[in-house]
Amino acid sequence: MIKVGIIMGSKSDLPVMQDAADILKELGVEYELTVVSAHRTPERMFNYAKTAADRGLKIIIAGAGGAAHLPGMVASITHLPVIGVPVKSSNSIDGWDSILSILQMPNGIPVATVALNAAKNAGILAAQILGTSDEGLSQRLKAYKQDLKEKVEASAKELEG
Amino acid sequence: MIKVGIIMGSKSDLPVMQDAADILKELGVEYELTVVSAHRTPERMFNYAKTAADRGLKIIIAGAGGAAHLPGMVASITHLPVIGVPVKSSNSIDGWDSILSILQMPNGIPVATVALNAAKNAGILAAQILGTSDEGLSQRLKAYKQDLKEKVEASAKELEG
Amino acid sequence: MIKVGIIMGSKSDLPVMQDAADILKELGVEYELTVVSAHRTPERMFNYAKTAADRGLKIIIAGAGGAAHLPGMVASITHLPVIGVPVKSSNSIDGWDSILSILQMPNGIPVATVALNAAKNAGILAAQILGTSDEGLSQRLKAYKQDLKEKVEASAKELEG
Amino acid sequence: MIKVGIIMGSKSDLPVMQDAADILKELGVEYELTVVSAHRTPERMFNYAKTAADRGLKIIIAGAGGAAHLPGMVASITHLPVIGVPVKSSNSIDGWDSILSILQMPNGIPVATVALNAAKNAGILAAQILGTSDEGLSQRLKAYKQDLKEKVEASAKELEG
Amino acid sequence: MIKVGIIMGSKSDLPVMQDAADILKELGVEYELTVVSAHRTPERMFNYAKTAADRGLKIIIAGAGGAAHLPGMVASITHLPVIGVPVKSSNSIDGWDSILSILQMPNGIPVATVALNAAKNAGILAAQILGTSDEGLSQRLKAYKQDLKEKVEASAKELEG
Amino acid sequence: MIKVGIIMGSKSDLPVMQDAADILKELGVEYELTVVSAHRTPERMFNYAKTAADRGLKIIIAGAGGAAHLPGMVASITHLPVIGVPVKSSNSIDGWDSILSILQMPNGIPVATVALNAAKNAGILAAQILGTSDEGLSQRLKAYKQDLKEKVEASAKELEG
Amino acid sequence: MIKVGIIMGSKSDLPVMQDAADILKELGVEYELTVVSAHRTPERMFNYAKTAADRGLKIIIAGAGGAAHLPGMVASITHLPVIGVPVKSSNSIDGWDSILSILQMPNGIPVATVALNAAKNAGILAAQILGTSDEGLSQRLKAYKQDLKEKVEASAKELEG
Amino acid sequence: MIKVGIIMGSKSDLPVMQDAADILKELGVEYELTVVSAHRTPERMFNYAKTAADRGLKIIIAGAGGAAHLPGMVASITHLPVIGVPVKSSNSIDGWDSILSILQMPNGIPVATVALNAAKNAGILAAQILGTSDEGLSQRLKAYKQDLKEKVEASAKELEG
Repeated sequence: MIKVGIIMGSKSDLPVMQDAADILKELGVEYELTVVSAHRTPERMFNYAKTAADRGLKIIIAGAGGAAHLPGMVASITHLPVIGVPVKSSNSIDGWDSILSILQMPNGIPVATVALNAAKNAGILAAQILGTSDEGLSQRLKAYKQDLKEKVEASAKELEG
Repeated sequence: MIKVGIIMGSKSDLPVMQDAADILKELGVEYELTVVSAHRTPERMFNYAKTAADRGLKIIIAGAGGAAHLPGMVASITHLPVIGVPVKSSNSIDGWDSILSILQMPNGIPVATVALNAAKNAGILAAQILGTSDEGLSQRLKAYKQDLKEKVEASAKELEG
Repeated sequence: MIKVGIIMGSKSDLPVMQDAADILKELGVEYELTVVSAHRTPERMFNYAKTAADRGLKIIIAGAGGAAHLPGMVASITHLPVIGVPVKSSNSIDGWDSILSILQMPNGIPVATVALNAAKNAGILAAQILGTSDEGLSQRLKAYKQDLKEKVEASAKELEG
Repeated sequence: MIKVGIIMGSKSDLPVMQDAADILKELGVEYELTVVSAHRTPERMFNYAKTAADRGLKIIIAGAGGAAHLPGMVASITHLPVIGVPVKSSNSIDGWDSILSILQMPNGIPVATVALNAAKNAGILAAQILGTSDEGLSQRLKAYKQDLKEKVEASAKELEG
Repeated sequence: MIKVGIIMGSKSDLPVMQDAADILKELGVEYELTVVSAHRTPERMFNYAKTAADRGLKIIIAGAGGAAHLPGMVASITHLPVIGVPVKSSNSIDGWDSILSILQMPNGIPVATVALNAAKNAGILAAQILGTSDEGLSQRLKAYKQDLKEKVEASAKELEG
Repeated sequence: MIKVGIIMGSKSDLPVMQDAADILKELGVEYELTVVSAHRTPERMFNYAKTAADRGLKIIIAGAGGAAHLPGMVASITHLPVIGVPVKSSNSIDGWDSILSILQMPNGIPVATVALNAAKNAGILAAQILGTSDEGLSQRLKAYKQDLKEKVEASAKELEG
Repeated sequence: MIKVGIIMGSKSDLPVMQDAADILKELGVEYELTVVSAHRTPERMFNYAKTAADRGLKIIIAGAGGAAHLPGMVASITHLPVIGVPVKSSNSIDGWDSILSILQMPNGIPVATVALNAAKNAGILAAQILGTSDEGLSQRLKAYKQDLKEKVEASAKELEG
Repeated sequence: MIKVGIIMGSKSDLPVMQDAADILKELGVEYELTVVSAHRTPERMFNYAKTAADRGLKIIIAGAGGAAHLPGMVASITHLPVIGVPVKSSNSIDGWDSILSILQMPNGIPVATVALNAAKNAGILAAQILGTSDEGLSQRLKAYKQDLKEKVEASAKELEG
């Protein structure tokens, strides 16, 4: 059953946002992925957010760049947790506009913002959220963390010779 | 007949946004003024923008602070020109978030952005837009400009002694 | 009849500013396009702005980079609406100087500022302004919006497979 | 049963972080609240994060200012979701250091960052996360959203007269 | 004979710009001081700059805030050296707009920019420029430097006890 | 007779600083050019600044990048006017450090700062300063300005077709 | 025997820089404290730095604001470690100029930079440096760290009730 | 005997951090170099910092990028002086996040921060610290400084022809 919806403001955000999909797949979490533009398809965005919970989604990951309104607007419509990925798109000023227009949401309407272009972390965060009520997933996240550690230790050994 | 809609994301933006109303009144342009929050009343925002043209509005002035999505979202729904006023609200980072999340709209969906807190200029810009097809208003704008000039000249004389 | 004047501070801004011309053409709005430098041809700038309304222009689109004074100075001379395009020129600090010196106009003299390099949006905004008194153009803008929407929906379908 | 741990780098962060506690109480979510300094009590921080899941916590909300390492370090130790609140403390440079040192986590270790000083949103986000497996809480969040909407509509009516 | 013209965009800049006048007086340099607004009195600005050299002025000091076009526009019209003072006016974003719109002039049209609000330094710089052909003034500048030094040495002695 | 000393913090600044030399040559002003590092050759810097006036120099142009102390330190030692060129060197953070450490001099010690990398403008400014007491040079600067104007007018004609 | 020299660019920096003196006293490290201005007393600065090692100093702590050249220039003259304290003085742009002009030193000439206004940390760092060859001081630093920890634990207990 | 520990958050920081090792080698200071990630190997980081003094290390140089917590966390655990190198890694926003999250440490826990990517300066600073109790090293640092000076003088001669 699909629990995470991954959406992005433009198909040009896909190279960044694909990372969210890939890590969710690796962690065994089902997702859907599509393009929803707050600015060019506001009604589609409205419908997506409005129906998300009823369609069984538990979390929405939304990525956008520049004046990035998609994550915040989706969060304004649904009561599900929304994870925002600021994308350093071609029309962005080094990512500052993407970050600030996703992060600085007013009281009442949070967006869980991750680092610039950090769609992978958005996927991990979604898994952590689902892991709060899914012991198996929680164990897979622990294993993932263990794996990160071992890779660093291996590269340390290599460097130390 | 009301031609300009002035909206703001929160009643706390009124001390800033009132300037737009005041200058429009001074220039003889009818307006309406209300609170429309993109984040707390997304459907109200949708309806406001969707019906604006049919209700006879020609221009919408929208002010908001922080992750300021109101001007851009209204612009995404209506084909009327939208003037955005970045408000340096209490939750804003010196106004940078307000400016960037209003200004940096993607291609296809412009927002005519004015300076931080410059609701007065938003009102003048609205009058200039209406003045493109209203010769009387155009003349009043010329007179307003003349008045600005004379005030500077008077203060120059005063300073020069 | 030419209703929109597109000017830029340097011929090197043409690759950016051409987008304004192209979209105006697509929307059926006549324009003129030339180079006017506030700093190197101040008198030419003065004359251009001073005579614009009498020559029948309704709107001026001005693009410039760095310490970008062209849009603001033109706005100081004419009572027509002026749209400013901050250009990320080679001598600009990531566009911040271009944006701030166009956007932050004092009370009384607005410049309708669009996003960095967003000359296309400047063209659309000009059409929206003319559309407030031109029903045909207003309809073409609606159709343009519809077209944007359909393109996103198509790319969404493609992505969803 | 306590599901949310609220921690802060210094007691001086309490006026900001109390908002997280208050909204959780309002939404019927049990929490604990204490001071844990990454820099002055690194072992305490380690122990807090290491034992959090076993003690039954589902989410950790961590607030800090300046070079704000607490949220990221806690996230490095636990596999629970961590919500970071950048605090504009007295030693912070307008909050930029707080934001960037919480938000810009490397791949593998997300921190769900909210707006500057937005501890209330951290609390709501924690509730949204728990709401993904708690239908009653999910309904209370819907009601909270409805309440936000009605307050805006009331203030709109007041303003419209 | 008046050799330095001090101008400012608004009478509200006087508390800052008076420092330029005071130090010039102290150094025995004659000056004139008035208000010239690039945006509200563009023709006055044009005339001021155009006639400056013929009226015997050798240097123009121009202070302005926000989108500060006065120094750059004066420099575009006259071949005299122009000293720009970025003013942190009430409508400025912490002075960044003032600095960037004065400093970042294109090739061909320099403005000698001093620090934010540093009208005193603008006055000293004007005196240094005149001192390149006025030995008496050059000696007074040396004495001024000596005086600065002695004041620091005195405060050092005081601190060292 | 050499009237302008051009110095730079490192030979790697030469591609930028050469522009100052070239325009001075074009305007018929004699100059000298060398490397003086405030940080690596502090005594050489001291001597250069200390003896500059006695050697007949009237102006010093100093370019540096990063924590750029050369212009300000030279200004602290000599009473001659010092023109600072912020260089966007490889170790600079997009030029911000270069600009701020040259521009933001304390009261008493001005540095006439030009735009980032704008060594050409530093040269023109030096000529303008010398032109305050050299009528021939003053005329050459007028002609240079006229030439700038004509080039823009020619490119305008070309563009207008 | 005096091992640490504390200097500052202006007596107005004393309220910030006194913290360095106080913590050194608390840790039992002898120091001297005076005013040395790079810009107003360059020769005094030169002599101070040049003779520091011979006078028995082991470390210099230098605080300054705005275009803060004192720490870097002292580091250019002496081979002793220099600790720089960026001061948020009244003429500084929110401290950014102070930080960048101290931190961004070129290769070869390091300045050990601490946080904005963090003179206390400069003092602790000086003690840590001396502690590398002074076991007693090293123990006092350990005790200081322990004390920091206990204070946090006490405030945590207080908060937990 | 190894006196300096060089650590970095990721093996990808090696091209930057190698400069610290190289200059230490040149100056005759023994070092060790390895990868320690605060976020992926928090326990390894803890152990490294906790045992550093007992293993005979006198100084730790730590480099990291983005939300760079390694230098500050190591400083929180050991009482040795810690030198922080902000790395402009691929996930960093032009280095601002790296700088601020290393520099802006709270009172009590200093990190001696050097310029962005300036690992060479970190190595020199470490040598300067050890030089406070090692006369031979102190002499080698003087010679290094002399060498820097001579290289600049040579390139000056070359440029002057």
